Amino acid sequence: MPRSEPTPLTLLRRAHEAQVLDLLRRLGALSRAELARRTGLSRTALSSITTSLITRALVVTVPAPAEGPRGRGRPVGLLRLDPATGRCAGVDLGRVRVRAVVANAAHETIATASRPCPPHASWQHRTELALELLDELLGGAAQGLEGIGVGVVGPVTGAAERDLGVARRFGEQYGVPVLVDNNTRLAALAETVHGAGAGSRHVVYVRLSHGVGGGVVVDGRLLRGAGGTAGEIGHITVEPTGPRCQCGGHGCLELYASLPAVAAAGGPENDAAVARAGRLTGRMLAGLCAAVNPELLIVGGELARCGARLLTPLRTELRARTLSAARAGVRVVGERLGDEAGALGGMVLVRQETPALYGAPTGDAVALSMADRNAASADGCCTGPVASGSC
Amino acid sequence: MPRSEPTPLTLLRRAHEAQVLDLLRRLGALSRAELARRTGLSRTALSSITTSLITRALVVTVPAPAEGPRGRGRPVGLLRLDPATGRCAGVDLGRVRVRAVVANAAHETIATASRPCPPHASWQHRTELALELLDELLGGAAQGLEGIGVGVVGPVTGAAERDLGVARRFGEQYGVPVLVDNNTRLAALAETVHGAGAGSRHVVYVRLSHGVGGGVVVDGRLLRGAGGTAGEIGHITVEPTGPRCQCGGHGCLELYASLPAVAAAGGPENDAAVARAGRLTGRMLAGLCAAVNPELLIVGGELARCGARLLTPLRTELRARTLSAARAGVRVVGERLGDEAGALGGMVLVRQETPALYGAPTGDAVALSMADRNAASADGCCTGPVASGSC
Repeated sequence: MPRSEPTPLTLLRRAHEAQVLDLLRRLGALSRAELARRTGLSRTALSSITTSLITRALVVTVPAPAEGPRGRGRPVGLLRLDPATGRCAGVDLGRVRVRAVVANAAHETIATASRPCPPHASWQHRTELALELLDELLGGAAQGLEGIGVGVVGPVTGAAERDLGVARRFGEQYGVPVLVDNNTRLAALAETVHGAGAGSRHVVYVRLSHGVGGGVVVDGRLLRGAGGTAGEIGHITVEPTGPRCQCGGHGCLELYASLPAVAAAGGPENDAAVARAGRLTGRMLAGLCAAVNPELLIVGGELARCGARLLTPLRTELRARTLSAARAGVRVVGERLGDEAGALGGMVLVRQETPALYGAPTGDAVALSMADRNAASADGCCTGPVASGSC
Repeated sequence: MPRSEPTPLTLLRRAHEAQVLDLLRRLGALSRAELARRTGLSRTALSSITTSLITRALVVTVPAPAEGPRGRGRPVGLLRLDPATGRCAGVDLGRVRVRAVVANAAHETIATASRPCPPHASWQHRTELALELLDELLGGAAQGLEGIGVGVVGPVTGAAERDLGVARRFGEQYGVPVLVDNNTRLAALAETVHGAGAGSRHVVYVRLSHGVGGGVVVDGRLLRGAGGTAGEIGHITVEPTGPRCQCGGHGCLELYASLPAVAAAGGPENDAAVARAGRLTGRMLAGLCAAVNPELLIVGGELARCGARLLTPLRTELRARTLSAARAGVRVVGERLGDEAGALGGMVLVRQETPALYGAPTGDAVALSMADRNAASADGCCTGPVASGSC
């Protein structure tokens, strides 16, 4: 279902807010007059913006140093960023472990924690575990938290009971925007922005683990698709006459390149089993190179630890099946962030998609805000691909 | 090579311009005072913007109706859009025919023409043919033309001699921004915005013709990839043990679902040959559904005229190989715009990517402008995926 678009006026308003916040970040405390001069905004327009920023606790007023005679009119106070703002949390409700990460406004990880959980724990149980972790990391002081990005296992449509429930519970607890997405897709985003793909903008990430999943990053943003299931690349056919998969298809990559599949074929010590996994992963990736033309392919998950035994046949098959033009630019590398990638990706998502102090790192100054998500939810009842905490 | 990003101030400036233009479009002629009141901009900021719009011939001044006493200061004139602006041209330098289309500011096609050309004509010859067509369509009056989008056959990297040469020639002739892209990808864009996909935002288009190509549209925008080769979906492997393809791969879709392939297998009258083409096209599309999760698949090209004989096996294979979640939302339809799609797509591209009067139809008010392209070119010498006329 189409999501309603922000209006030009909303975009303009956000661009103005971003400009004010950017000036305060770079120049420290400023008077309203100075902000008006530097932004070119009228007093009325500026006043509306600063009032909103103060109400949202992004900006605080501080007394101006007394110097020279004061004129009449409103008291001269300076505006500056709230020093407690800008923290961001990422959570990964993984299959066997729950993780939480908190970063400061400078995008530095300031705290991290994890706890094992049984593979068949309910999402409610995982959520409560994660809330305990977050409480410890934040020391009870959630003030200044900008948002929480939560990774979950499996497709995220934004309408599923679990996705809405997870978003609601975190939202209730902290009163901030909550974005829920697939945890493997979030790992793709984190690897692109902070890991093996740092500096790249077009990336395909594949994770060879208990299942096979991944994520496609286009121009620095995660591709979610119409229904939020983009990146389910473990269920692309690689052997058309292969056996039936639990997804209903035949010959899916997951049947050859997951941990259980390799275990059944001799285990990770068996070169032939690992080579087959690599070759068929390369075949799948070759198809995506033709369709999406990434500059970088990142291979992660436990099987990636097999190194060259996996990657050499993968690269050989890739070369054999990729159009020369797309092949020319593409590199294959291992992942770098390891088990924290999913939680880190949650933070990246929040920074990209909420009206953050520091904007998206991609030069996109007008990222979709929670306000728009909420507006869309009011119309479409949370059918967007990302569940939000306020639904 | 990464393209330099517009700065927040450039984005802000463009948002202001878009707001001024939008007000003039919706409300007709307005005074500067009225524009200041409605935009919230200071006189100084607004003056800078209107001066630039007037210099660029997007806005003209007209005398205000005389009413009431005049105050002192600058003469009261009204600003309004230049009625001659907003025309846009699309060109398709196709394999056997060159086409040109011109639309007005209301996005209505006002003139169209085509001329056959031999399959082995040089790009220079095709370009001159297209310039003749455009001269006829424009009646020698290129004034008010916003830009030209040109479709060419084969991968477009933005650095190839042909791509640069085509852009330069059109740019010299008309002095407007020229964008060059693959003509099948442009057809995908046109079908998404004005054709079978109107209203959709996530679309995969496949064209079954002399070759097999296509385009992937994500969130209303054409996916180009890191090197500009995205959408070469005719060279995705569908039969891993199949014969060698001219691209260097084996078992590519084009070996089964192109006109020559079907001709060799019995011709378009032969049900089995057409069914095989449909089945293998469905297999390729199933993979893209998993990776990209489109809401709509558009099948075009001469083979699509086989109708149900092609589409029924295509849909059957798609259902058998697509993850249930992605399958739930996806529809398969035939193309609607026919042979003009490539030229129409050139116009859509220009409207989306140049700082147009009417902005992008996707709610993205700050589309990448030619100014940025040129800045990027100065650094990177036209290595971006789209060649521009000023290089």
